[in-house]
Amino acid sequence: MGVVVNLDGDRKKPSLDALTALVRDDLKAVNEQIILRMDSPVHLIPQLASHLIVAGGKRLRPMLTLASAKMCGYEDGRRHVALAACVEFIHTATLLHDDVVDESDLRRGLASANAVFGNKASVLVGDFLFSRSFELMVEDGSLEVLAILSHASSVIAEGEVLQLITTNDTETSETAYLNVIKAKTAQLFAAACRIGAVVADRPKVEEEALENYGMNLGIAFQLIDDVLDFSAEQAKLGKTVGDDFRDGKITLPVILAFRRSDDEERQFWRRTLEDLEQSDGDLQHGIELMIKHNALHDTIERARHYGAIARDSLGIFDDGPVKRSFDDLIDFCIDRAY
Amino acid sequence: MGVVVNLDGDRKKPSLDALTALVRDDLKAVNEQIILRMDSPVHLIPQLASHLIVAGGKRLRPMLTLASAKMCGYEDGRRHVALAACVEFIHTATLLHDDVVDESDLRRGLASANAVFGNKASVLVGDFLFSRSFELMVEDGSLEVLAILSHASSVIAEGEVLQLITTNDTETSETAYLNVIKAKTAQLFAAACRIGAVVADRPKVEEEALENYGMNLGIAFQLIDDVLDFSAEQAKLGKTVGDDFRDGKITLPVILAFRRSDDEERQFWRRTLEDLEQSDGDLQHGIELMIKHNALHDTIERARHYGAIARDSLGIFDDGPVKRSFDDLIDFCIDRAY
Repeated sequence: MGVVVNLDGDRKKPSLDALTALVRDDLKAVNEQIILRMDSPVHLIPQLASHLIVAGGKRLRPMLTLASAKMCGYEDGRRHVALAACVEFIHTATLLHDDVVDESDLRRGLASANAVFGNKASVLVGDFLFSRSFELMVEDGSLEVLAILSHASSVIAEGEVLQLITTNDTETSETAYLNVIKAKTAQLFAAACRIGAVVADRPKVEEEALENYGMNLGIAFQLIDDVLDFSAEQAKLGKTVGDDFRDGKITLPVILAFRRSDDEERQFWRRTLEDLEQSDGDLQHGIELMIKHNALHDTIERARHYGAIARDSLGIFDDGPVKRSFDDLIDFCIDRAY
Repeated sequence: MGVVVNLDGDRKKPSLDALTALVRDDLKAVNEQIILRMDSPVHLIPQLASHLIVAGGKRLRPMLTLASAKMCGYEDGRRHVALAACVEFIHTATLLHDDVVDESDLRRGLASANAVFGNKASVLVGDFLFSRSFELMVEDGSLEVLAILSHASSVIAEGEVLQLITTNDTETSETAYLNVIKAKTAQLFAAACRIGAVVADRPKVEEEALENYGMNLGIAFQLIDDVLDFSAEQAKLGKTVGDDFRDGKITLPVILAFRRSDDEERQFWRRTLEDLEQSDGDLQHGIELMIKHNALHDTIERARHYGAIARDSLGIFDDGPVKRSFDDLIDFCIDRAY
C-alpha cells in the first residue's frame, strides 16, 4: 500500500512511512539475511555486529536498494534482498571503523560498540562484515554490482581520510567539505540506488537517474546530519549534541559561520576547533554564533538545493507510489532539521 | 634462471634467492602495479600506504601467486601480476589494522604507520587498500578469484577476532591456537597460491595441491614467527623481541611452556600474560622457562611437521626449478628460527 503525502498546501510532517510500507516484506527478508549472514563460529562477531545492526537504525540504505528495484519494475527475483544486505554490511563496517576514529560516545542512543568492546574488536568485526559483504556479492554473481560497490567502498575510505585531514582546519572550504561528504556519505546512497536498477536490468539512463538521486539525497542527508549536531533535535534522537564540535570536525555550519565571523569570533573558532581548547559554554557560544550568522539556516538551504536536484533526477520515471515515496524521503531527510 | 639449492648433504643456508630469481621480472611488474594502484588524489593514502608497502617486506605472498602461476605453466597473460598486487594489498590492509590492534612499536624495523600517522589513518588507509584490492579483482573479472579472496578475507577477520579472544588466556589449547593461525595467516598464503592455479586454468586437483601447500607453509611460517618473538634472531631483523609477551598474546611457545610448567611457574605466566603485570627480567625469565621446557624447540618441530605436509602437497607436480624453489621456501621459513 502507498501512503500518499500531499506535498502542497498544509502538508503533514514528512515521514518514512510510505517508503517503509512499500518495501516492508522485502525489508523483513533483508533483516533475516543480515542475521543469517553476519553469523560466525566466532561468537564475538555476531554479538558485536548485532549491537549495531540489530539494535536498529532506519535501514535507509538497504531501503534505497529495495525501492530502486521496485521503481525499475524488478519483481521476479530475490537479488535485491541479498544486495540490500550487502549495502547495510558495508554501512555498518564504516560505522564500526568510525567508532574507532571518532571516539564517539553515543551512536543511536546506545553506547557505541567501541565503548563496550574496545577499538580492536570494532576494527576487526568491521573487516569481517566488509569481507562478508563481498562474499554475498560474489554469490549474486554480477561483476557490475561488484564494480559499483567495490568502487563505492574505496571512495568512502578516501572520503574518510579526507575528513581526517580537514579536521581541526577552520580554513576548510565549502568545496573541500562537499568533496568529503560526497565521498564518505553520498557515494553509498548512490551505489545503493544504482544496484536496484542493475538487478532489474534497466537501461543505463535509469541506473544513472537513480544514482544521481542517491548522490544528491546523500549530500542533503549529511548536511542535515551536520546541522543536527548543533541542534536540540539531536538530543531527542538520543544522540549527544556537539560531537563534531568536540572532535574539531569541520562541517558546513562551521565553515559558513567561520567565513562570516569577525576577527574575534574567528579566534573563538580557532581556539575551540583547531586547538581543541574547550570549556563549558563554548558549544553554546558556537551555536549562538551560527545562529547570528545564519549558518544553520543556510546549511539547510544548501540541503534543499541538493534535495531539489535529487527530485528532478527522477523525472524520467512515471509517477506512482514508489516515486512519491522517493520524493517524500527527500522531505523527510531535510525536515529532520526542524 | 633458477638457482638450484642442494637440499641434501652439506646444504647452504636456505634463502629466497631461487624463488626471487624465478619471479624477478613479474615481481617488478607487481611493484609497479602496487605503486600505480595505491595512488589517490588524497595524498595521505599513498603516503601512509607506501610507508608499509614500498618500505619493504619480502613480498612473500605475491611471490606465491607468481610462482604458483609459473608452476601451472601460465605464460601468456598478465593476470597473475594484478592478482599478486591484490594479495599484497589485502596483506598490507591487515597489517595496518593490526597496528591499531597491537599497538606494536616496530614493524620491519621502521616506526609503524600507526605510531607515525595515528590509529584513525591506519584504519582508513587499510580500508582503502582493501577496497582497491576488490576493484582490481573486478577488473580481472574472475568470480572464482573474487570468491577465493573474499572468503579468505572474512576468514582472516575471524582469525584476528579469535586471537583477540584468546589473548591473555593462558588456558588456550594448541588446537584453538592452530585455528587462529590457520585463519589469520595461513588462509592468505593458501589463497595466494590457489589463484596462481586459477589464472592458469588448471584442474581442481592442482588448485587444491597449491592451496594445501600455501596453508601448511603459512602455518609453519607463523609458528616460526612466534618463536622469533622470543629469540635473538628477531633483534637482528630490526624487530623488537617480546612484542607478543608484552601484549599477553598466547602463542604456541607459551602454550607448550605453560602446559609443562609447575604451579609456581604457572603463577608467573598468569601474572605476566593474564594480568599483564610485567617488570624487568620477566621476558628473560619467560624465555628461560621456554628453554627449560623445550617449548621453543618443540614449536620448531611442529613447524617442521607442517613444512613436511606442504612439501608432499606438491607431489603431483613435475620436478623442476619452480618446484625446487617452493621446497626451498619451506626450508627458508623454518630455518629463520636459527
